[in-house]
Amino acid sequence: MIWPSHGSNPHYLYEAMGLSLPKQYIDLSANINPLGPPHELKEKWQDFYHEISVYPDPYSTKLKERIGKTVETSVDSILIGNGGAELITLVARMLAGKKVLLVEPTFSEYEQACRGNNCEILSHQLTAPSFELNLAELRPRLVEADALFLCNPNNPTGIQYPASTIISLIEACEKQKCFVILDEAFYDFLSSYESLVPCINRFSNLVIIRSMTKMFAIPGIRLGYLIAQPAIISILRQHQSHWSTNTIALLAGELCLQNETFIKETQEFISNERKRLFDFFSEADFMVSSSEVNFYLLRDPFFENQFTLFEFLLHQGIIPRHTFNFPGLEGRWLRFAIKGKEENNKLMEVLAQWRTSHH
Amino acid sequence: MIWPSHGSNPHYLYEAMGLSLPKQYIDLSANINPLGPPHELKEKWQDFYHEISVYPDPYSTKLKERIGKTVETSVDSILIGNGGAELITLVARMLAGKKVLLVEPTFSEYEQACRGNNCEILSHQLTAPSFELNLAELRPRLVEADALFLCNPNNPTGIQYPASTIISLIEACEKQKCFVILDEAFYDFLSSYESLVPCINRFSNLVIIRSMTKMFAIPGIRLGYLIAQPAIISILRQHQSHWSTNTIALLAGELCLQNETFIKETQEFISNERKRLFDFFSEADFMVSSSEVNFYLLRDPFFENQFTLFEFLLHQGIIPRHTFNFPGLEGRWLRFAIKGKEENNKLMEVLAQWRTSHH
Repeated sequence: MIWPSHGSNPHYLYEAMGLSLPKQYIDLSANINPLGPPHELKEKWQDFYHEISVYPDPYSTKLKERIGKTVETSVDSILIGNGGAELITLVARMLAGKKVLLVEPTFSEYEQACRGNNCEILSHQLTAPSFELNLAELRPRLVEADALFLCNPNNPTGIQYPASTIISLIEACEKQKCFVILDEAFYDFLSSYESLVPCINRFSNLVIIRSMTKMFAIPGIRLGYLIAQPAIISILRQHQSHWSTNTIALLAGELCLQNETFIKETQEFISNERKRLFDFFSEADFMVSSSEVNFYLLRDPFFENQFTLFEFLLHQGIIPRHTFNFPGLEGRWLRFAIKGKEENNKLMEVLAQWRTSHH
Repeated sequence: MIWPSHGSNPHYLYEAMGLSLPKQYIDLSANINPLGPPHELKEKWQDFYHEISVYPDPYSTKLKERIGKTVETSVDSILIGNGGAELITLVARMLAGKKVLLVEPTFSEYEQACRGNNCEILSHQLTAPSFELNLAELRPRLVEADALFLCNPNNPTGIQYPASTIISLIEACEKQKCFVILDEAFYDFLSSYESLVPCINRFSNLVIIRSMTKMFAIPGIRLGYLIAQPAIISILRQHQSHWSTNTIALLAGELCLQNETFIKETQEFISNERKRLFDFFSEADFMVSSSEVNFYLLRDPFFENQFTLFEFLLHQGIIPRHTFNFPGLEGRWLRFAIKGKEENNKLMEVLAQWRTSHH
């Protein structure tokens, strides 16, 4: 079976499974903020219409200034991108032909983009169910690598690695002339997070990638940014196509960052829902990853492979993310996004139903 | 002086000139349909709001099917892109390190994208004021080239090359194992045009790039497509970032192609306005390129360099496109878009004013 390489667009998944997409379904395969987008976007949407006939600012000046203020860095350390995916592609391009070390299980796009650039892929596997990042184990691997991809909080586990560990890792990498590509696509879902942006000034080997599509629930219009020293920004820009970030995304990005309470409200909502879900999972004997964000891994410990559970959920119109293309998981877990109260209730109801007949 | 590399976003131009952007201005530096976007887009715009939270279909299936029907080719010969610019970048990537021949003056992005990929740039210069494509002159140059970029109708001249000439050129290139990258960004502004899409089946060296942002006046949301044999599509897709074309662009593209009268109306309007403008230019002793589309080159033959006229127009709030970064033009012409009646009237009025004091 050829599995869709990402979540969302669930009809491709049902097609691959030989099933038909139910009329009513709950898509938990994409990790998008259930509270979003911020209300400002809806209010301004009609005004945006007139901007579709205007070429995007190829330098993204206003959005870069706004991000610079928000995350406290200079505009020449920022690159705006057509979603995090474009930024990953540009980084992979910069690393063409190099040896790239992935800390797995992790977002499959790093491997995909690096393979497309003839990189040699090395893998450091974290062990379920803790998926702990053990520096003593990772450090010896750095000798062979030109770049390390680390996703924090990690997709698909939702686990946050301690800032001190990451800083030690960046230092160790610097000594080995190894880039650290730190993907913080979900950092703003963490209730407690220590910003590593100031490290940019200290470390010329650090590249931070962030997405704006998850927190602000705008994956349809694509928006992300990258932070690194200006010399790296120049290299990446050289391969970025002109006008790559569209006008609507630029305007939406500015607007989203002006709402200062939205992120806090989201963090609280997600944290409450996660607690509610995790209490149920514990009660009902499901294993979960120690996620601190808006998605988590789950497995039924009574089964090695989760395919039967996966199929059961799809039949009920509940769509998790398969993990067949996450090396180190290979289907032994399922990933779920935390959605609104009702959707989460429905998930618990269906899993309770599963448990009554499978234990 | 560092000139902006493209039209639109005129504040960058005024900044570079040390001028301040007037409150009222007419931007003739971007070649966007003055009648657009089609009314369907405005009507559906509010519905599109709900789609910003939905990941784009990474396979662009529906839009590809619609384009396949419209231009009569199979979906596996189509690649959807985040504007023509992304498609040019992907093609340049495919040509990395190769020798690339440009038929100039032409769109500056080919050279930029190819240089970013360490291509060797060769140039075949067409001669003003006819800018005729003489195959006998071009043919000997093909021996040294791995790929040829040809823009038809050409930007910035607006001149259409005969289909028979282009087909002979593709044949000649095929014998030399040379790709032909045929950029048809403005083909749908031509009242009479013979589609070269069927040539895709015959020629494995042909790549056609088309933009949807010019005719449908949607440069802000980015949309283009590329037609080539499936083997080429596969190579290009390998370097395209995931979800590169946003959901709004995909939906807008489908909608635009359903309006069958819009393109005809545009062609008629542009043709009438062009006649009106060109009659005036001839009367007032300005030289123009034999454009058949929605933009043209103009020069005042009483001056070698057009900088004084350029400055004069900017002071009047009329913004042409400078040609300093078009090799073979180097500022000896200015490019103007054809806009609405009023804007075109204003241009004629200001040029008449210039003529009374400069002859």
